[in-house]
Amino acid sequence: MKKYRYAIIGTGAIGGFYGAKLQQVGCDVHFLVHRQAEWEWIKSQGLRLESPLGDFRLPVVNTYNNIHQMPPCDVIIVALKTTQNYLLPELLSPLLNSNSIILLLQNGIGVEAQIADQFGELQILGGLCFVCSHKVGLGHIQHLDYGTIKLGAYHPNHQAAGITEAMKQIAADFNNTGIPIELSEDLWLARWQKLVWNIPYNGLSVVLNARTDEMMGNPETRLLVRRIMEEVVQGAQACGRSIKNSFIETMLDHTDNMKPYLTSMKLDYDAQCPLEIEAMFGNPLRFSQQAGTNLPRIEMLYQQLTFLDHKNRHFQD
Amino acid sequence: MKKYRYAIIGTGAIGGFYGAKLQQVGCDVHFLVHRQAEWEWIKSQGLRLESPLGDFRLPVVNTYNNIHQMPPCDVIIVALKTTQNYLLPELLSPLLNSNSIILLLQNGIGVEAQIADQFGELQILGGLCFVCSHKVGLGHIQHLDYGTIKLGAYHPNHQAAGITEAMKQIAADFNNTGIPIELSEDLWLARWQKLVWNIPYNGLSVVLNARTDEMMGNPETRLLVRRIMEEVVQGAQACGRSIKNSFIETMLDHTDNMKPYLTSMKLDYDAQCPLEIEAMFGNPLRFSQQAGTNLPRIEMLYQQLTFLDHKNRHFQD
Repeated sequence: MKKYRYAIIGTGAIGGFYGAKLQQVGCDVHFLVHRQAEWEWIKSQGLRLESPLGDFRLPVVNTYNNIHQMPPCDVIIVALKTTQNYLLPELLSPLLNSNSIILLLQNGIGVEAQIADQFGELQILGGLCFVCSHKVGLGHIQHLDYGTIKLGAYHPNHQAAGITEAMKQIAADFNNTGIPIELSEDLWLARWQKLVWNIPYNGLSVVLNARTDEMMGNPETRLLVRRIMEEVVQGAQACGRSIKNSFIETMLDHTDNMKPYLTSMKLDYDAQCPLEIEAMFGNPLRFSQQAGTNLPRIEMLYQQLTFLDHKNRHFQD
Repeated sequence: MKKYRYAIIGTGAIGGFYGAKLQQVGCDVHFLVHRQAEWEWIKSQGLRLESPLGDFRLPVVNTYNNIHQMPPCDVIIVALKTTQNYLLPELLSPLLNSNSIILLLQNGIGVEAQIADQFGELQILGGLCFVCSHKVGLGHIQHLDYGTIKLGAYHPNHQAAGITEAMKQIAADFNNTGIPIELSEDLWLARWQKLVWNIPYNGLSVVLNARTDEMMGNPETRLLVRRIMEEVVQGAQACGRSIKNSFIETMLDHTDNMKPYLTSMKLDYDAQCPLEIEAMFGNPLRFSQQAGTNLPRIEMLYQQLTFLDHKNRHFQD
């Protein structure tokens, strides 16, 4: 079996972490770095990872600030925020050969379909990262907790695509690094399940300026979180996927047991970065509406976030 | 016809404005002032009103900081925030005779019923103030715009109570001051109508930290305002009152034509005062639920506001 060559599009908290782990166990990894200063730093100093799984440095990495200098790769890992996906047609084309696999390590739902519009002949995978990591400096990633990736294959019309050979080979590479990979036969279900957590906590953390423990500690917002989770389950149902009510209980219990946590959307908001509103809120709403189901609370969150995101990035008063 | 003696409970932006106007045209008015410093100031300096209808001073006013020193009055005007209504049983008793009329100049819905529990044998009126005024200093009220009061009589079970003699006499006194009074045969309908504006703008102004023009200028929040107004109309319908859809258009047009405006709830929030969440959001939700109708967006606003209000007044981090 031929070894995969990996491209990492977006060397941040996600791409930097997983890419460094892959290179550490001997994979051939090529990192695209957007910012000039960071690219120069990584070219001369390499990558540094702090992690409870073990700190390490990679003094030499293959790093690029120009997509056209990168070699064709077998697996293109997209680790950008979904707000930058409009760049993907241009970024992906030079890296692809006819057997390339595109793996989107991104939140939300419906992101694979947009890629499939242009690269539908290729295998497109989605990966859901259950990881807590941050970029804390140039070429410097801090991994705090978790790390599991849930991996599934895209299929048009959101059918369950089963487990492909490529998924198994990628899983083997990741397993070598010690990162657990769960293979999902049904990416669409896996994405809806992740939204059960992401939609209420990411949305409300921005609107209410609140950590997870604050939302859980107030009976009114605790009930609101549950009501929003129920709407996600309704949306999934309308889109042909059944999520049990016990899954909601599991997510609530899990959050009760987490350390006080600021969501990634809240961190983006505080940094005045664009929020992943369309992938995480807009797409599930549109899919549900197409299936004849309205989700009023999620729609209201979408409207509130759109307002706040615009104001946050366009003027301060 | 005997002239009415008026008590003003709460000499702030509302009570101070209307009370001063009544005294200016010769009514016998008695003002209760809560804060010691303000009471001393008004006792020595009187009340001052700035208004596009004409500035004036009242050098001598009947002012009290102890309810037991006030004379019995014919009309007790309650101009407190509804968050202080738990004080009313104690405040009202010493002022009442068997013919006294209680007039609540307050927002929200269901406030008269709470008073009727204790003083059900008296005539209870509700007044909706369409006024823009602020207290800007000790004994100093600034009236900016509008002023109309819509006046109606409370009836148990929310039946339309028609126009009473007392309403006509109070209207005559106010009309002498130049303040327009509209008499409503149906207080319950009038209160639901006012909620069509108050619920979306007051609620969202706090949650989104926004002026009316900002909410109207963003297409997403503009749509959200409309959806929330539609829920108020649904709630009214469930509670036996029909509000036409054209009323929503009128409210939206009216707001488009207003100067950029921070709602009273937003001003309360910024001053870290308790918000009138129960009268304005909790009661309409409960009445609708009792009638079998859920209003998910208003419920979500209620939950968000409860969280923000609690955090705003209990700790800062």
